[in-house]
Amino acid sequence: MKSRLIKLARMPEGMPQIIDFQLEEDELGPIKNGELLLKPLYFSVDPYLRAAMSGGHPPNLNVGDIVKSRGIAEVITSTHRNFAKGDFVMGYMEWRDRLVASASELNRLEARGLPLSAYLSVLGSTGLSAYFALNEIGKPKKGETMVVSGAAGAVGSIAGQIGKIFGCKVIGIAGSDEKIKLITSDFRFDGAINYKTSKDIGAAIKNLCPEGVDVYFDNVGGDVSDAVLSSMNNYGRVVVCGTIAEYNDSQPAMGPRLLPLIVFKKLLLQGFLIGDYKDRFEEGRTQLQQWLADDKIRYQETITKGFEQLPNAFIGLFNGENLGKMLVESR
Amino acid sequence: MKSRLIKLARMPEGMPQIIDFQLEEDELGPIKNGELLLKPLYFSVDPYLRAAMSGGHPPNLNVGDIVKSRGIAEVITSTHRNFAKGDFVMGYMEWRDRLVASASELNRLEARGLPLSAYLSVLGSTGLSAYFALNEIGKPKKGETMVVSGAAGAVGSIAGQIGKIFGCKVIGIAGSDEKIKLITSDFRFDGAINYKTSKDIGAAIKNLCPEGVDVYFDNVGGDVSDAVLSSMNNYGRVVVCGTIAEYNDSQPAMGPRLLPLIVFKKLLLQGFLIGDYKDRFEEGRTQLQQWLADDKIRYQETITKGFEQLPNAFIGLFNGENLGKMLVESR
Repeated sequence: MKSRLIKLARMPEGMPQIIDFQLEEDELGPIKNGELLLKPLYFSVDPYLRAAMSGGHPPNLNVGDIVKSRGIAEVITSTHRNFAKGDFVMGYMEWRDRLVASASELNRLEARGLPLSAYLSVLGSTGLSAYFALNEIGKPKKGETMVVSGAAGAVGSIAGQIGKIFGCKVIGIAGSDEKIKLITSDFRFDGAINYKTSKDIGAAIKNLCPEGVDVYFDNVGGDVSDAVLSSMNNYGRVVVCGTIAEYNDSQPAMGPRLLPLIVFKKLLLQGFLIGDYKDRFEEGRTQLQQWLADDKIRYQETITKGFEQLPNAFIGLFNGENLGKMLVESR
Repeated sequence: MKSRLIKLARMPEGMPQIIDFQLEEDELGPIKNGELLLKPLYFSVDPYLRAAMSGGHPPNLNVGDIVKSRGIAEVITSTHRNFAKGDFVMGYMEWRDRLVASASELNRLEARGLPLSAYLSVLGSTGLSAYFALNEIGKPKKGETMVVSGAAGAVGSIAGQIGKIFGCKVIGIAGSDEKIKLITSDFRFDGAINYKTSKDIGAAIKNLCPEGVDVYFDNVGGDVSDAVLSSMNNYGRVVVCGTIAEYNDSQPAMGPRLLPLIVFKKLLLQGFLIGDYKDRFEEGRTQLQQWLADDKIRYQETITKGFEQLPNAFIGLFNGENLGKMLVESR
């Protein structure tokens, strides 16, 4: 059986480009015992993949490698007793439109009243990142003020809403008026700042948070984070969940030094990796699903159609083209 | 009774200078009920005082204020039943050579077999800072590698020795060959780097720590910290105890951005303030005293003689003139 696939044609320099990827076709080998023939339905594209293309994040991707990301697929043929034709499975998958994979590396997906795509968004790594990173690092307390960068994105939108559930005042930062509207109306944040049109982000934060910032949930890094960090209160917590502003830098960018601020304000900054919470995913999914059922959190997805659109969708992340989770629907 | 005193004559700009201070004399008022007449014996001078002179650290010091720091004094006259003539007391004291102070703000000092000055050094705020900051933030584990900046100083020298007690390999960074010798011979660190003569601090760290750095106990900030941070292992902890390299900056200095490093390596950075551990000082002193008795830790003091030398001793901190704790003996 033929399979289309997408390889890394060269290492991106700076912003990833379409010519960094190559669409090819090959012939799938025979299905061995314990393997499944899969038809991928959705692929997740995420900023961390850019870091994986410069050695900054597992899995290390090199020139010639088939790109991999989390996906959901339908079982076409099974040689494993735990899986049957028509089952849905979830896991890391090569970017192929037909795929042979070991059953042991996949999890069965029992959709519990939500669309399949939700298991790659609000109930997937991004929703779970928001949940665990905020709980374990941010530790928001009732009455505190929380700022979220990348607030219209897959992680930020959920993190901010969880902050509201915990009784915080929550302010979001994002890069378009459409996103600002989404954050304040649909996601019900207390306020939002468009960092692209704001003349002085620092002043905008001080204006919306005159009481200072207790928790900063950071998905972007860069100038936006400089501005938020300068408004942190004593004993503030900074969840360092992503730094999309800097994933394309080939040299470490320069910025105001943080150590003096950290010592004078007794701040805690901690980097977050969702893989560290694998054993607790079920806990997180159960809680998130309850909040969804109670309309305490809402989620958004930007779904691009067509397997061959994977590189474009990935590049789109760095242009801020997504509202909520960016996914590609394969056909 | 006459009292000499030292005021802040103007706010330091950049490096503090002798003309930022003014020596004066006044007449002490009558001793009210509950007050003690004191003769200070030792004053502590510490880098954080510089930050207090630019609003970055309590107590806020303004032009015209008498400078204050921790000190040890002998009771000359007591109007409080808990204190008698000849007792020794410890607490925050104005820079005066004779002092009237409220008994309620002072603690009696029972010297337990150690010189009085030890209660401002290894058993004082700096030794306790090393103990609590390392225990609560650094959390060193047996077999890990720890780097200490300001390693010949009051906090760093004790922190590194505690790291050794916990079974870490410990490398110190300091600014003179005399200090390097002290660190490796007297304090028994596993290695040391003179950052002033090293051509490439980053390479020196990689050379001494090929296995990477798990705990960084930072007292200095600046370029030295940039070099150490770039060698951190995944899940490394950074104890941000001081940033003496930056206390004299009027503008936030620029440096390589830390957030990408924090997220990719899942680092924890946390600012430390000894005041947060007030309720546990007795625990810390007991442990430190046991280690002193067992010769598991050693301490060093640089004692400048003469009350009027207080500003010079303070300024000397920023020139790296101290081995271990910098103290002034008043007469």
